[in-house]
Amino acid sequence: VSRTITFLSDYGYSDEFAGVCRAVMARIAPGSRIIDITHGVGRHAVRQGAILLANSLPHAEPGVHLAVVDPGVGSERRPVALRAGEDRILVGPDNGVLAPAAAALGGAREAVDLSTSPFRQEPFTATFHGRDLFAPVSARLAAGAALREAGEPLDPSALTVLELPRPRIYPDRVVAHVLYRDGFGNLTLDLEQADLASTFLRPGRQVLVEAGRNRVEVPFARTFTDVGEGRGLLYEDSVRSLALAINRDSAADVLQLEPDDEVTLSPAS
Amino acid sequence: VSRTITFLSDYGYSDEFAGVCRAVMARIAPGSRIIDITHGVGRHAVRQGAILLANSLPHAEPGVHLAVVDPGVGSERRPVALRAGEDRILVGPDNGVLAPAAAALGGAREAVDLSTSPFRQEPFTATFHGRDLFAPVSARLAAGAALREAGEPLDPSALTVLELPRPRIYPDRVVAHVLYRDGFGNLTLDLEQADLASTFLRPGRQVLVEAGRNRVEVPFARTFTDVGEGRGLLYEDSVRSLALAINRDSAADVLQLEPDDEVTLSPAS
Amino acid sequence: VSRTITFLSDYGYSDEFAGVCRAVMARIAPGSRIIDITHGVGRHAVRQGAILLANSLPHAEPGVHLAVVDPGVGSERRPVALRAGEDRILVGPDNGVLAPAAAALGGAREAVDLSTSPFRQEPFTATFHGRDLFAPVSARLAAGAALREAGEPLDPSALTVLELPRPRIYPDRVVAHVLYRDGFGNLTLDLEQADLASTFLRPGRQVLVEAGRNRVEVPFARTFTDVGEGRGLLYEDSVRSLALAINRDSAADVLQLEPDDEVTLSPAS
Repeated sequence: VSRTITFLSDYGYSDEFAGVCRAVMARIAPGSRIIDITHGVGRHAVRQGAILLANSLPHAEPGVHLAVVDPGVGSERRPVALRAGEDRILVGPDNGVLAPAAAALGGAREAVDLSTSPFRQEPFTATFHGRDLFAPVSARLAAGAALREAGEPLDPSALTVLELPRPRIYPDRVVAHVLYRDGFGNLTLDLEQADLASTFLRPGRQVLVEAGRNRVEVPFARTFTDVGEGRGLLYEDSVRSLALAINRDSAADVLQLEPDDEVTLSPAS
Repeated sequence: VSRTITFLSDYGYSDEFAGVCRAVMARIAPGSRIIDITHGVGRHAVRQGAILLANSLPHAEPGVHLAVVDPGVGSERRPVALRAGEDRILVGPDNGVLAPAAAALGGAREAVDLSTSPFRQEPFTATFHGRDLFAPVSARLAAGAALREAGEPLDPSALTVLELPRPRIYPDRVVAHVLYRDGFGNLTLDLEQADLASTFLRPGRQVLVEAGRNRVEVPFARTFTDVGEGRGLLYEDSVRSLALAINRDSAADVLQLEPDDEVTLSPAS
Repeated sequence: VSRTITFLSDYGYSDEFAGVCRAVMARIAPGSRIIDITHGVGRHAVRQGAILLANSLPHAEPGVHLAVVDPGVGSERRPVALRAGEDRILVGPDNGVLAPAAAALGGAREAVDLSTSPFRQEPFTATFHGRDLFAPVSARLAAGAALREAGEPLDPSALTVLELPRPRIYPDRVVAHVLYRDGFGNLTLDLEQADLASTFLRPGRQVLVEAGRNRVEVPFARTFTDVGEGRGLLYEDSVRSLALAINRDSAADVLQLEPDDEVTLSPAS
């Protein structure tokens, strides 16, 4: 009855870090399947990791979900494990990387501080908690240990919340922000499907996009190929957020936009 | 009796795309092994994906073989699944990415159009068919569903063929093309072992290679270390095609060659 | 009773090379778990591969451990398999890539030359021994074959040793070398925990680091966050070697240091 473990990190692919964590988990929980979500999260990009984790979880079988994006490794930031909806267990540093995924699952129902977890591995180093703490804890939980055995009880309301930008919606325009840039240069904005209902943003509309010095008029389309190569579009992306892209090119590069940058959308006249 | 799934894509490693598809397949077909071939195919590089798929299949156990390189996602291009020799099932967009692998297996014997597949996942988005269509279809087929259950029957002869360059063979020279560049900068030419028989190209011969403004004389050698560091060579590569390389360097960079570029080979005088 | 296989290489992620080896192993040893350590070792970087392998093994369940970093593929360098402590089997080219891991396990107790292994796969190519030799041999050994069946007996003392730099320790200073650079730009020096005992290098000390034209004073700290962003530190890394880093930046880039470069450490006055 071993549970599946999903694993996401900013460890990258050139080092052995993610591989060693996989090896630790396979050794402790030989019956668990390990599914790598990605290890290409930008270094220390807590928000990007948080969004990718939240995007992935609805598609994965409920199990143990490990996310390590941990600029404060070894400092006072707490390592945690929490139980949320669907009996999913989330494991990682308490710096917000788990927060959106937990919130989408109805919030943490139970949480533990792993700082002195009996499941941590000795010798315990100050710089590689993925290997020495998070991987062994995840594996023990996947192999059947109870959450309360993994650490000290923690009030779920004390868990760190992730600060995210919020759009400003006016009658004649929407001021949104770049929430996330994917590897193709497509830009997810901080506008979810529910936000759009009260705005002029409807499929089929032409929209004026202003970002820094750039002004470009694009349709609210369905998919990339609805516009010609090199042309821009707004579309509802695969997680139902509004996104800005250029067919066969990188909107991030062409429009020189990064996460948190402001983008003003108004009806094209 | 779940079958193995191999998975190749141009999703890259910085996003969650490949990982989410893996999660979907693991959820639907828990008994199937998933083998990542690579997710580093160049973005929208249909031909490269097609070649890598064809190169890989002979080495993998027959099963379900998923390939997603899909510049036309959401457009009118058909998503398909087909059955070829060895009872292998190939799944992907009908843009040629499956064609060389299917041809090497004797061609498609049966095919279905997945556009309205009952196996697709809701909500079905216009931009992430890997997650919403190809992964669930692959998993259902791996878990035992019949191909005809996955979509509408399609005449195999209607499947898209991949256009590839063809060499021109003359008595005194061969005009070939770069078919593919690997990550080390080695260049596979469009000359297979069978093409060589009628030419002067024999192991041990010295060959004059002309490519754009570059002229270089190289041996038809057996392996890289048959020449000194920084020296060029022609050799039969791991799929039995003629390839051009530089020992410990990148032939693509040094000779400034890209896929489709012409390379003229003649006997060195 | 199939054993786990760990797999490390310099094949990178843009080609099908690692994936095809995985496919070969899964076909031959369907009951074996395959754990990718990394395929991002620098091209032909034998020492880096050797260090990553040695770092990883203590964390992996004993099994078959495949490492392919093979600049001499197809040449006279021997392909080998060896048995070391904990009944671990190491497989790869005999160019030193297996040496530190084998030494840490008490040395090879038994070794075979795989040049004419009956487990190699036909057609056998001169340039892709990972697929044609190392992967099938690893899989057969994982599936239960005896080491002596895999090749010709070889005197373990004839195996290639890896040359590594050695620090020079003086009363008032230590001249060390960069052994390895990780993907974050952190620099592991050739100073292990045991070397430090006879020196002034103690946690809490301020240390003057001289590297080429650069001079920087840093603390011997516990972890990155013990210093401010952009500040340097020495610390005991996750394998207990002394390492040089910059919090939230790349020490390799800032100090322009590469493997083998000399670094002089002395007490800050």
